[in-house]
Parts: sequence; C-alpha cells; structure tokens
Amino acid sequence: NQLFSCEGEVIGQVNGLTVVSYGDASFGLPSRISVTAHYGSGEITDIERDVELGGAIHSKGVLILTSYLKARFGAEHPLRFAANIAFEQSYSGVDGDSASLGELCGLLSAIGKLPVTQSLGITGSVNQFGEVQPIGGVNEKIEGFFAACQLKGLTGHQGVIIPVQNIRHLMLREDVLAAIRAGRFRIHAVSRVEEAIELLLGRPAGVMDAEGSYPEGSVFAAVAERFAVWHDAEKDDDEDEDKPAAAVVPVPVAVAASGESRATAVRRRHRGVNKH
Amino acid sequence: NQLFSCEGEVIGQVNGLTVVSYGDASFGLPSRISVTAHYGSGEITDIERDVELGGAIHSKGVLILTSYLKARFGAEHPLRFAANIAFEQSYSGVDGDSASLGELCGLLSAIGKLPVTQSLGITGSVNQFGEVQPIGGVNEKIEGFFAACQLKGLTGHQGVIIPVQNIRHLMLREDVLAAIRAGRFRIHAVSRVEEAIELLLGRPAGVMDAEGSYPEGSVFAAVAERFAVWHDAEKDDDEDEDKPAAAVVPVPVAVAASGESRATAVRRRHRGVNKH
Amino acid sequence: NQLFSCEGEVIGQVNGLTVVSYGDASFGLPSRISVTAHYGSGEITDIERDVELGGAIHSKGVLILTSYLKARFGAEHPLRFAANIAFEQSYSGVDGDSASLGELCGLLSAIGKLPVTQSLGITGSVNQFGEVQPIGGVNEKIEGFFAACQLKGLTGHQGVIIPVQNIRHLMLREDVLAAIRAGRFRIHAVSRVEEAIELLLGRPAGVMDAEGSYPEGSVFAAVAERFAVWHDAEKDDDEDEDKPAAAVVPVPVAVAASGESRATAVRRRHRGVNKH
Amino acid sequence: NQLFSCEGEVIGQVNGLTVVSYGDASFGLPSRISVTAHYGSGEITDIERDVELGGAIHSKGVLILTSYLKARFGAEHPLRFAANIAFEQSYSGVDGDSASLGELCGLLSAIGKLPVTQSLGITGSVNQFGEVQPIGGVNEKIEGFFAACQLKGLTGHQGVIIPVQNIRHLMLREDVLAAIRAGRFRIHAVSRVEEAIELLLGRPAGVMDAEGSYPEGSVFAAVAERFAVWHDAEKDDDEDEDKPAAAVVPVPVAVAASGESRATAVRRRHRGVNKH
Amino acid sequence: NQLFSCEGEVIGQVNGLTVVSYGDASFGLPSRISVTAHYGSGEITDIERDVELGGAIHSKGVLILTSYLKARFGAEHPLRFAANIAFEQSYSGVDGDSASLGELCGLLSAIGKLPVTQSLGITGSVNQFGEVQPIGGVNEKIEGFFAACQLKGLTGHQGVIIPVQNIRHLMLREDVLAAIRAGRFRIHAVSRVEEAIELLLGRPAGVMDAEGSYPEGSVFAAVAERFAVWHDAEKDDDEDEDKPAAAVVPVPVAVAASGESRATAVRRRHRGVNKH
Amino acid sequence: NQLFSCEGEVIGQVNGLTVVSYGDASFGLPSRISVTAHYGSGEITDIERDVELGGAIHSKGVLILTSYLKARFGAEHPLRFAANIAFEQSYSGVDGDSASLGELCGLLSAIGKLPVTQSLGITGSVNQFGEVQPIGGVNEKIEGFFAACQLKGLTGHQGVIIPVQNIRHLMLREDVLAAIRAGRFRIHAVSRVEEAIELLLGRPAGVMDAEGSYPEGSVFAAVAERFAVWHDAEKDDDEDEDKPAAAVVPVPVAVAASGESRATAVRRRHRGVNKH
Ligand SMILES: [Ca+2]
Ligand SMILES: [Ca+2]
Ligand SMILES: [Ca+2]
Ligand SMILES: [Ca+2]
Ligand SMILES: [Ca+2]
Ligand SMILES: [Ca+2]
Ligand SMILES: [Ca+2]
Ligand SMILES: [Ca+2]
Ligand SMILES: [Ca+2]
Ligand SMILES: [Ca+2]
Ligand SMILES: [Ca+2]
Ligand SMILES: [Ca+2]
Repeated sequence: NQLFSCEGEVIGQVNGLTVVSYGDASFGLPSRISVTAHYGSGEITDIERDVELGGAIHSKGVLILTSYLKARFGAEHPLRFAANIAFEQSYSGVDGDSASLGELCGLLSAIGKLPVTQSLGITGSVNQFGEVQPIGGVNEKIEGFFAACQLKGLTGHQGVIIPVQNIRHLMLREDVLAAIRAGRFRIHAVSRVEEAIELLLGRPAGVMDAEGSYPEGSVFAAVAERFAVWHDAEKDDDEDEDKPAAAVVPVPVAVAASGESRATAVRRRHRGVNKH
Repeated sequence: NQLFSCEGEVIGQVNGLTVVSYGDASFGLPSRISVTAHYGSGEITDIERDVELGGAIHSKGVLILTSYLKARFGAEHPLRFAANIAFEQSYSGVDGDSASLGELCGLLSAIGKLPVTQSLGITGSVNQFGEVQPIGGVNEKIEGFFAACQLKGLTGHQGVIIPVQNIRHLMLREDVLAAIRAGRFRIHAVSRVEEAIELLLGRPAGVMDAEGSYPEGSVFAAVAERFAVWHDAEKDDDEDEDKPAAAVVPVPVAVAASGESRATAVRRRHRGVNKH
Repeated sequence: NQLFSCEGEVIGQVNGLTVVSYGDASFGLPSRISVTAHYGSGEITDIERDVELGGAIHSKGVLILTSYLKARFGAEHPLRFAANIAFEQSYSGVDGDSASLGELCGLLSAIGKLPVTQSLGITGSVNQFGEVQPIGGVNEKIEGFFAACQLKGLTGHQGVIIPVQNIRHLMLREDVLAAIRAGRFRIHAVSRVEEAIELLLGRPAGVMDAEGSYPEGSVFAAVAERFAVWHDAEKDDDEDEDKPAAAVVPVPVAVAASGESRATAVRRRHRGVNKH
Repeated sequence: NQLFSCEGEVIGQVNGLTVVSYGDASFGLPSRISVTAHYGSGEITDIERDVELGGAIHSKGVLILTSYLKARFGAEHPLRFAANIAFEQSYSGVDGDSASLGELCGLLSAIGKLPVTQSLGITGSVNQFGEVQPIGGVNEKIEGFFAACQLKGLTGHQGVIIPVQNIRHLMLREDVLAAIRAGRFRIHAVSRVEEAIELLLGRPAGVMDAEGSYPEGSVFAAVAERFAVWHDAEKDDDEDEDKPAAAVVPVPVAVAASGESRATAVRRRHRGVNKH
Repeated sequence: NQLFSCEGEVIGQVNGLTVVSYGDASFGLPSRISVTAHYGSGEITDIERDVELGGAIHSKGVLILTSYLKARFGAEHPLRFAANIAFEQSYSGVDGDSASLGELCGLLSAIGKLPVTQSLGITGSVNQFGEVQPIGGVNEKIEGFFAACQLKGLTGHQGVIIPVQNIRHLMLREDVLAAIRAGRFRIHAVSRVEEAIELLLGRPAGVMDAEGSYPEGSVFAAVAERFAVWHDAEKDDDEDEDKPAAAVVPVPVAVAASGESRATAVRRRHRGVNKH
Repeated sequence: NQLFSCEGEVIGQVNGLTVVSYGDASFGLPSRISVTAHYGSGEITDIERDVELGGAIHSKGVLILTSYLKARFGAEHPLRFAANIAFEQSYSGVDGDSASLGELCGLLSAIGKLPVTQSLGITGSVNQFGEVQPIGGVNEKIEGFFAACQLKGLTGHQGVIIPVQNIRHLMLREDVLAAIRAGRFRIHAVSRVEEAIELLLGRPAGVMDAEGSYPEGSVFAAVAERFAVWHDAEKDDDEDEDKPAAAVVPVPVAVAASGESRATAVRRRHRGVNKH
C-alpha cells in the first residue's frame, strides 16, 4: 500500500531505508521522506516528533541537521524560512538517526527547489559538521531497496547511498551481489553530506569561496539564493507596509521600463553576489 | 442525533466517512468535518488535538495538510490567517489520517469562501505534495454513506470520493452496487487533491502559470485572493495606526471619486495579478 | 448555597442547566455561567479548562464557539479583546458541550454590553457555523430549572431554551406540564444561535447586509461596535506613544469645540459605518 | 512560628483565614496573604499555583479575581502591570476559593498603594462581577482568628469579614460570642467586594460616574491612577528611546520652571480626569 | 570535594547553610550559592528548578525574592536584566525556603557588582516585603558552618546570619559556644533583609528618600544604578539601530572633547539622579 | 564505530571523556562533543536535554556554562547568537556535569571560530564564575583516552585536561604512567576555565583591561568580536528594512572607492575597539 517510486526525480522527496522486524526475521523496506519549505521564522517541524511518533534518537538527528543548516547558511543573519519533515505513510513510530543524512538532502532539495533522484535509496547519520556516521542494518536496508526496485523493474540507474564506515559490514545476498557485479545496481559509500548531495541532486554541493559565495549551479548556491529571496521578501513586506501604493501580492510584477520582471532582477542580483 | 445533510452546499463543511466497531460488527457512518478561517498569524487549530480527542496519526494528517497549504500559498511570504478544523458532534476521539483529504478540501473552501457539495462523502489521506494515499475500511465507509443518503432520500447526485489505490479493495453490498449500476450513486477514485477539490467545490483547482498566478474562476485563485486580502488587511491596519485620520473599521468604505468601493478595487487588483 | 436568580437581567451572566447524579437518581440544577470581556490580544480563557476542572468535550465546545465568534467578527482583521468564561461556584469539574450555546450568548452579552434575562435557562451545543446541536438529559434539566424558579416564585416569564432536536425527547413531570399549559412556564426550541440570542438578549441578533454591517439596535451591531472601539483603542494607544502631548488615560475627554465627547464621536462614526 | 499581626496596617498584606484538620479535630488559623505589584505586561502570578502548591479551586479563584480586575480597569486598553500573590509561610498546599475575596482586596491595596488594616481577618469567595459567595468552615475560621488576636491582645478593633450567606451557619463558642456582645470583636457580613474593600482599606471603593471616573479619595480612583502612571511610564519609556536627551531613570525629576515635580503633574492631570 | 571558602569576598557568591541526614544522624554543611546577572528581559533563572532538582518550597522562595526585587526596583518601569541562581556542586536536589534570604543577598551583589564576604554563612527565609522568616535546623546549620571554618582555620571574623525568630531554638555544642564566648565566632540575628545585606555586603542597604533615590554608597543605590545602566543600554541599542553611524559595540568609547568617557558620563548622571 | 580523532584541530569539536560500566567492570571512553554557533536570539540548545537524553545534572551544567558566557559577554547588552551542543553518536543518555568544562571550551571555539586541538581529552565541571570543580572516575577516563590514542598511534602531543582537585585521586595503570614518564602523554590539571581554553585553543584566554577590551589575539577577543559582528548584523538587517536600496544579502560587498570590503571595515573597527 506504500507509495513508492524508484524512477524520475521529485523536489523534497527522498527514498529512505528502514528495517522492520517480525519475530526472528527482519527485512528492509524503503520509506518515503518528504520535505516542504516555505516562508517562516526559522522553525523546522519534525512532524514525527510533533505528534510523538518519533523517538529521541530520531529527534536528535533532526536537531543536528538543523544545526548544520543554520550554522552553514545562517551564521551571521536570521533565516526567514520554515520546513516540515515527514515520514510518509508511517503510522507506528520511527527511531534511530539513520535517516538524518537523507532528511538533510531532502531539506536542501526543498529549499533550493532542486529535484532528488528517486533511483537511489539512502541511509546514514550526519553530525553537526556534515560528516557521515555509520548506521545499523545496512544489509537488510540494501536488500530491501533492491527488492522494491526489482518489483518496479531494475533500470540500471538504481542503487543506494551508505556511510563509508558501513562498507566493512556488507554481506549481501547473492542476487544483489550479482546485480551489482552486472552494473545493474550500485552502492555509493559516502563520508560527507556533500557527496550524498551530489549523488541525489545531480550537481555539486559547492565549496564556499573566499568571499563567502558558492559556485554558480551548485546546490549550496541555489539554497543560499532561496534564503536571499526569503530575506528580500521580508524586506518587501515591510516596504509594502510603509508604502501603501506598492503591490501587496508577493508574486512577480513586470517592470515596464526595464523589460525585466522584478523577481528576475532579484535573482540576478543575488546570483551576482554569489559569483564574487 | 447527528446533524447530517447530503444535499445542497455549505462553505467549510465536508461529509467525512468513519468506521465504527461494536464487538465483531463494524459499519460506516458519515462524520461532519467543519472548518472556519479568519484573520490570524498562521495557526491552524486542530480542535480534536487541542482537547486531546485526536490520535497521533490524525494529528500527523493535519500537520501534513498544513504543510501542503503553506508550501503552496506561503512559499515566499507570511500567511496572515487562522483556521479551525473540527469533527462535529464527535465525543469519543478520532484517529487515522483518512480524513485529511476531506479536511484539506474543507480548509480551501473556508479560505476561498467557496461552498462544498454535501452530496458527496470523502475519504482519503493526502501527503505533503497533494498526492492521495490509500485508507482502510473503504467498503464500510461507502456503505455507511449510502445508507445515510438512503434515509434522507437518494437524489441521484450522491456518491463518494475514495483514493484510487482503494479501488482494488472494493467489495460492496449488492444494493449499493445496484444503485451504482443504476446511476443513482457514484464512486469517484482520485489520485491527487486537485481532483477531489474539483469534485467537492465544483470548479477546477487551477494550475499555476509561469507568472505564479492561477486561472480566473479556479479554487486556488479564490484562495490566493483571500490570502491577498488578509495580507492587505494587515497593511491597512498598520496604515491606520500611522494615519489617525483613516477609518478604523475594516469594512469597505465607498470612494467618492472613483465610484468604486475600496474593497472592490483591492479585489480587482488581485484578480488582475492572478490573470497574468 | 448557590447564587441563583431567575428575575431581572445581567450583562455576561447566563443560567446554564446541568444534571447531577447520586446513585440511581439524577436531577437537574441550574448553573450560573459568567463571562467578562476586556481589552486583550484575542484570547478567550476557558477558566474551567485552565485549572483542569473542564473535560475534553467542554473544552471542545469553547473552542468551537471561539471559532464561531472569530470567523464572524474577525474574518479580515485581528480582534483586540479578551474574554473569560467561568462556571460559578462549580467545584468538581464540568464536561459535555451542552453549555456552549449559553456560553456563546453570555460572551456576546459581555462584549456587546447587553444584559441577559435571568428568567430563562438554556441548554444546547453549537457548531462552528452557529447551528444548534442536541444534548442529553433535557427533561431533568428543564425540571431542575422549573423547581429552582418555583422556589424563588414563578413570575410567568420563566422558561428554558433547548435544541429543536430535543423536542422529541420531552417527557416532563406533570406539574411542569401543567405550568406550561397554564402559560406560567415556557419551552423555547431553537435551531440556530441567533434564535437563542434574541430570546436571551431581547433584541434581534441581526443579519449582515451587503456592505458587511448589521442593523442598528441588533446584538451583532453592538458586538461589532465594541470590537471597533477596541480596535480604535489600540490606535489611540499608538498615537499616544507617538504624540507625547496627547491624553494618556483612555477615558472620554470633552472636546470643547464640538460640544460632543470623543467617545460619542467614535460611537457615532462606527454606528454610521454599520448603517451603510 | 507564623508571622502574624492584628494591629496596624500594611500595603498588600491581608489576614486570610484557613481551617486545619488533625484527625477528628479541625480548627482555624490566620494565614497571611501578601501581594506585590509592579510594572509588567498584565500577568498576575499566583505563586502557589506556579510552584504546584495550589489546588484547582484556589487557582480558579485567582483567575476569577483577575477577570474582575481586568474587566473593571482594563475594559478598553491594556494594563501595564504585574502582580504576585502568595500565602506566606504556607508549605503544604492550599485549596478552595475562600481566600479570593481577601486576595482581591490585597491586590487592590498593592496596586493603589493603600494600606490594609491588620485588625480584620477575611474569608469569602468572589465571582467575576464582584459578588461575594459563601465559604465553608466559617465558625472555625472566626474562632481561630479570635484566638490569634487574644494571644496578641484584643484591642477592641478586631474582627472578621465573612460572606453574608454564611450568617446562617454561625454557631460560635461562648467566649467569642461574649467578646462580640461586649463590643470587643466584630463580625462584618458582606455581599459585594466593595464592602470588604471599605472595611479593609478604610475608604470607599468608589462608584464610577457617567464619565468613567471614580470619586477622589476612593480606592478605585487610587487604583485607576496607578494604572494611568504605568500607562504613562510606558509612554515615557518610548519617548526616552526616541529622544536620547531625555532622562532615562523613571524617578521624578524636579521641573525648575513650574516649581512642581513631573510626577506631581502627572498625578494632578489624572486626578483631573477622574474628577470629570 | 566541595569548593568552600570562608575568607575574602566574591561578587554573587554566598555561603548558604544546609542540613544533611544519614539514618538517625543529621548535620549541617555549607552550600555555595552563586548568582550571575546580565542584560535580559527580566527573567530570573532558578537553575535548580529549571532542571527539576529544586522542590516546590525552594521554587516558591525564589519567586518571592523575585517579587521583592521587582516591586522595589521595577515598580514603575521594566527591568532589562536577567539573573541565574545556582546551588554549586549540589547534585541531589534542594528544598525548603531557608536559602531565600542568602539568595536575595547574592542577587543584589551580582546586580550591584558589590562583593559578598565569605566569612559569614547565612540561613533564613524572606517574604515579599523583605521581612525575615524563621527556618528549621538552626543548630545543625551553625555547627556545620563552624566546623567547616575550623577546618580552614578560624579567623575571628567568621559567623552566621540567622532569623531573629530562631534565637529561641539555639542549643549549640559546647565548642561552638566557647568560640562565641571567646569572640572567635559570631551569630547575627536579623529581622529584615536590609540587616543581612549590610552584614554580607559591608555597606548599608540604603533607605529611599522622598525623591525615590538611595543614599550614595548604599547597596540599593548601586543596584538602582546598574538597572539604570541596563535601561540606558537598551536605549543606546535602539539609537544604534536608528543611527547607522553610531558605534555598535556597547563598550565605553572615549569622548575627545569632554575628556570623559561616555560610560562615566552615564554613571555620573544616574548618580546625580540618585542624590536628589 | 565511534568517529574519533586525536590529531589535528577542529572548530567546535572537543574530546570529552566518559565512563561506561558493564556489570562489575567500568572503563573510560572518549566521547565527541560538538558545538555550532550562528545568528539567533540568545538560546543555547542542549540537544541531549531537548530530546530527553540528558539527565538533570548534565542540564544544570549547561545552564551554568550559559550563565558564565552571558555574564562575561552579555553583561550590558543582548547577545544575538544561538548555539547547539551535542554528544555525537551518543544514543543512550548522558548525565553528570563532568563535560561542562569541555562544552564551554567547544562553545567558545565555535563562537570565536578558533580550532580546538584533538590531541587532548578533557574532563571537568565549571561553575558560574569559571572555576573548575572536581569530577568522578578520573582514572578510568584518562586510561580510556590513552587507550584510544594508542589505537590511533601516540604522537607525543596527546594528553588530558583534568580538574586540579582530582590530582589526589590519580592511580593510573603502569603503561599510562610509563608513557607519562616518557613524555609521550601528558596530564594537565587546571583550576579555571581560562587554563583549559589556553590548552585546547592554543592561545591565551585573555584578561579584560580597564576599558573592557581583551588583548588582540586572545580567545576572548575573538569571541567578543564575533558577538560584535552579530550585533552589527542585526543593525544592518534593520537598515536594510529602512533603506530599500541597500543590499539585502549579508555577505561582504566590495566598496569600490575605499578598496576595502565592508566586512573588513567592520572587523577592523571592532578590533580597534578591542585594542583600546
Ligand atoms: Ca508585514
Ligand atoms: Ca514594518
Ligand atoms: Ca497593526
Ligand atoms: Ca504600527
Ligand atoms: Ca503604548
Ligand atoms: Ca499598538
Ligand atoms: Ca524601552
Ligand atoms: Ca519604542
Ligand atoms: Ca538592537
Ligand atoms: Ca528599535
Ligand atoms: Ca528584516
Ligand atoms: Ca532587526
């Protein structure tokens, strides 16, 4: 009954990996993580925690990825955004921090409006500095995602992202190994969030230059640009209040003289700043 | 003793479907969902949760539909509204997220001031992106709504909205099947909230165009227009504070020169923006 | 030991009806509901809930009547008021939503400064749209209020307000029936809050006209006028801050030139707006 | 070990009356209620409740007297004050609302800076409109206060304030009756808070005139004046922010030209307003 | 293992006295109370309470001393400070209000930046008006502090501050009595906080004069001055916002022309006000 | 599976020391403490406490180090920052305050952007004034860190920081003693946080001079400078609001005329202030 997709790409949607136990048996299942972002005052709603379906370790993971995001993008000024993280169709509680790497990627996708590939599943925990930490049940999780892909049809682009520390725990079923050997399924071991970002979002995370900007086309540049738009939206909103004649609706309005919409101008200006 | 209506249309009022169990037997009953909306600072009060009559899964459903609404209409600026969602005459607690699709439609109805048909019952869960997710007890729910309509008299316009994934669970009683075959009762299977909106509110949800506007006459255009009025109300309120001579009461005041009320001007302006 | 009055009229004070059970026996007792209103930021304090003497259903009833009030009077702007609802001399907890109709009438009385007749007892639940919903124990409640009036002396003006849906549950004691037949006691069955308002406050609730105003002399006009005074008070308060020379105390000050107090001018202006 | 005084007068300090039970025996004891008031944003701290030493009924009593105060003095504008109510040297919890009448008098004393006579003990509950409600244990309470006064020495000015409804419960010990008959101890039965105020604070509570002012020298005039000073203090504070040259410390500064301190001018102005 | 000092003086640090029980035996131990103060919005953090190591009576004591402080120094305007009160190296919970007198002295020390002598231990409870209330275990507490001083070496300046009401409970060990008789240890019995302040801080508390100022050199003058600096800091901060050219860092900047730092000027001005 | 490093240096990352018990055996293990800092309104998130994995004593330790930080750097003005403290890969709860000294050093590192050496482990509690307090399990902690370093390879620069009061508890294993005697491992006993800061951050903490500044190059100077940048960021943000033409993104923008970026100018100005 679970909505599941292992093809195409979706903004804010990530294929997480979980382990389910029935008596002695335990097996892996994909679990859809979804993230939305919008204007706000800096709060990230961990929906599982909010309704008391998330355990302490899961909540800790979300606090840690929140710290990572704010320390990277809000080091010197407030962030005017809000985000919501949910485990879709999860009705019986989640725990552990093994989803935090995927949740962070989904969050950056939702903020930067950059789609996430659905071909890859991801498991891993992340610390406040973006380092990936090992998780449990790596084999069951890989086999579970492989099985789910098989049901939908292997495309040759599918695979999983795991923490580099978990390589030594790999003991996969023969059919999964065969698919890997045949190049029809892949395992990506990562040691930092930037590597996971590049795999899931299909473009480099981006390294900050000496002026504090990120390279054009990078994920972090898109995220920084969205934060700048929100910051500007707050300013516009205040201007509207002070200047009753200005347009109230915060959607782009064509500026006759320049032949360029205001939103485009805003974007170009920030892009310019990022290019420095 | 339950207030119930399966004719006409009402703003903010939706026929939800629930399953009740007595010993071995379980049967469906319609349950009225009501939603009001007014000026506020963005809070949606889930009344069942507030008084601890709502379970965790129900609360999660309301948080998710809230995310959907804010990500769609408040992506780049604050939303100055408040809304209240209640299960009327429900005295013993609700759980599950099968009402979230109907609650979201009721919320859009209350905000956009567009009436909901009472001829249709609705069940389904919705995710943060507006996709419909399957629910349980689909047969009991359909049979329960059918029975309630029969008591009031079948009009030929009645039916239910269900998630498309639940079609394969359909095993209805013969009398319901007969009514369906005779065209006196209908089952609508939907895969996105936009389809449910169109069925319940009688007009297209509306697809955002390149300028970020919705087509005139669409549900989303009416909702966006109400948010613009609220945004404007905040501005007016601040203007009043700064200009003591201005009228304090936020009801329309005729503007002599233009022969057009200020409220009409506001509405026309936003509509113009939406037409872009 | 209970303060009780079934004559005269009092602002913000309503005769609610409750049922008390001792072993097998259960009988009705009047219960005084009191409401005060003052300047604030929109909060309605349900005193029973605040001190954990109110059950979930009672709390739900107060949230629902709050929604009704805010959706009607605060649809497009903030309401600068606060109100407090209490069950007087109630020391052991209340539950059920059968007082919500009376509480809403008391709230409108306190806001609009219009007295409530003490000759009538009231029971009934109200939904977010002002529709009256049925309640339990209708016979015990009526008989209890009748008995309490008898002790004080029947005046011929006394009676009760009940939900229209409860008419079919009526099975009253012979002495009550006799008093009703003799025209010395009355039962008023209502289906909307506006009918209860008119009975308790002695003037029409008022229907909103096309300009959004209520008829002069109606309850809703008085309530809207009080909200306008509060809104204006906020404005005055800000003006004081900006203009140090202005009077600080928010009591009326005679305006020499016009021969009319400022408060009167304010009232006249709003009344004018309501007349549109 | 209890601090106790039944002579003289103290601002914000009231002799409450409590009943203590040991096995079958129960006897009355005076209990000192203390109240302080200062600049703030409208909060009244019920210290017993804050530290979870106060029961629900006691908390309800404090909420109700808060409503009374705000509805009377803050009907149309915010009140910039804070107050703290404590049962001194009470270490094991209080409940019941029989102190609320005394607490309200202590609160008015602290706000208006008018001393409370320590010669009188007080017991009684008050509703949102200032009406006094009956309490339990009236005989034990009176006898307990009488005994405490006897220990300190009867002055002839001592006595108790009780609710008028409790007169019919009076069954006092012979020695108390003898003292009453000899005019060495007095019982004052009151039906409204205004009567208790006059007894405890030694001046009339004050009746509001048509302009909304209270008679000079009345308790309510002093209270209204203090609220006006606080309101003015907020204004001055904002002025200071805007005019860096102005004095920052909110203590009176002599104004050379007029030969009158600024505080005096403020007081005179408000008194003027109250005289209207 | 406890840090303990009974010589010298430290700002914000007070030697409290506690009683510990092991089976039948109970003995006194000094317990270090530490207080810090800084810019804030009026909150006093009772660290024991915050982490649920403080009992209800202890919390009540801190609320009461907070009321005392705010009523004395914040009667007519907001206090822009924050303070933190902790029992150092206390790991198993504290209760009782016998530390509140010492905590209040530590608080005034931290705010006024005046050191507390470490030669004296203190026990006593304080009410909202600054009156000292009796406590339990006075003998064990005195003997415990005496023993701790003996270990460090009696200096002849050591002693304890106790409530005057506890004098009648004194039954000290012979060695303590001998030290007292020999003038090598002292017991100070106090009835008001001002007496404890003078003993611990080594200067008079200060009596408010008719203009609302305290005598130069008094503790209350230093405290009032610090509140004035904080109030001024808020003003400066707002000025900075409004005047972009002004210095941002709130540390003193030399003013060339006058040959006097701005901070000195500020201090002089307030001192002037206090001298009135 | 624990990430662990005992070489190099990292901003905001500290090697804490913990003791783990299995049955009768207990041994020490390093535990990574991580801290991030960013713009905010003064809150320090103790992540362990937030998710209820931290005990009361640990929470108390974090409150106390927070007091230390605010009293030192925010004595006279608000601090516009936020910080987050986590025990990485800690999944089963922490308690005790023996990490507070290391947490405070990590916090200062994150704020001042100065790296912490990973060669040293640290254990110790700190009070509100920066004094170090003794802890338990000192031998197990030292031996545990020694063993972890051995596994990674002793570099000769490794060692531990412990409270000076714990020297007398030292009873180390022979191999550790041998390494210490051979100069391949070191034990640093400290009595104040400033000593730990200098050891971990490799530069003096800094002593405040008469003008309230810290010596250039000191840790406290770097921390004060960061607070000044945040304070300035708030000001810039407000300026943007008031001057729509100004740049919104708070990253450095080259100022053509002066040949110096604005950020550099800001930094130079504050540095100048610190030099006074
Ligand atoms: Ca705005
Ligand atoms: Ca603004
Ligand atoms: Ca406004
Ligand atoms: Ca304004
Ligand atoms: Ca104001
Ligand atoms: Ca205002
Ligand atoms: Ca101010
Ligand atoms: Ca201001
Ligand atoms: Ca500022
Ligand atoms: Ca400002
Ligand atoms: Ca801004
Ligand atoms: Ca700002």
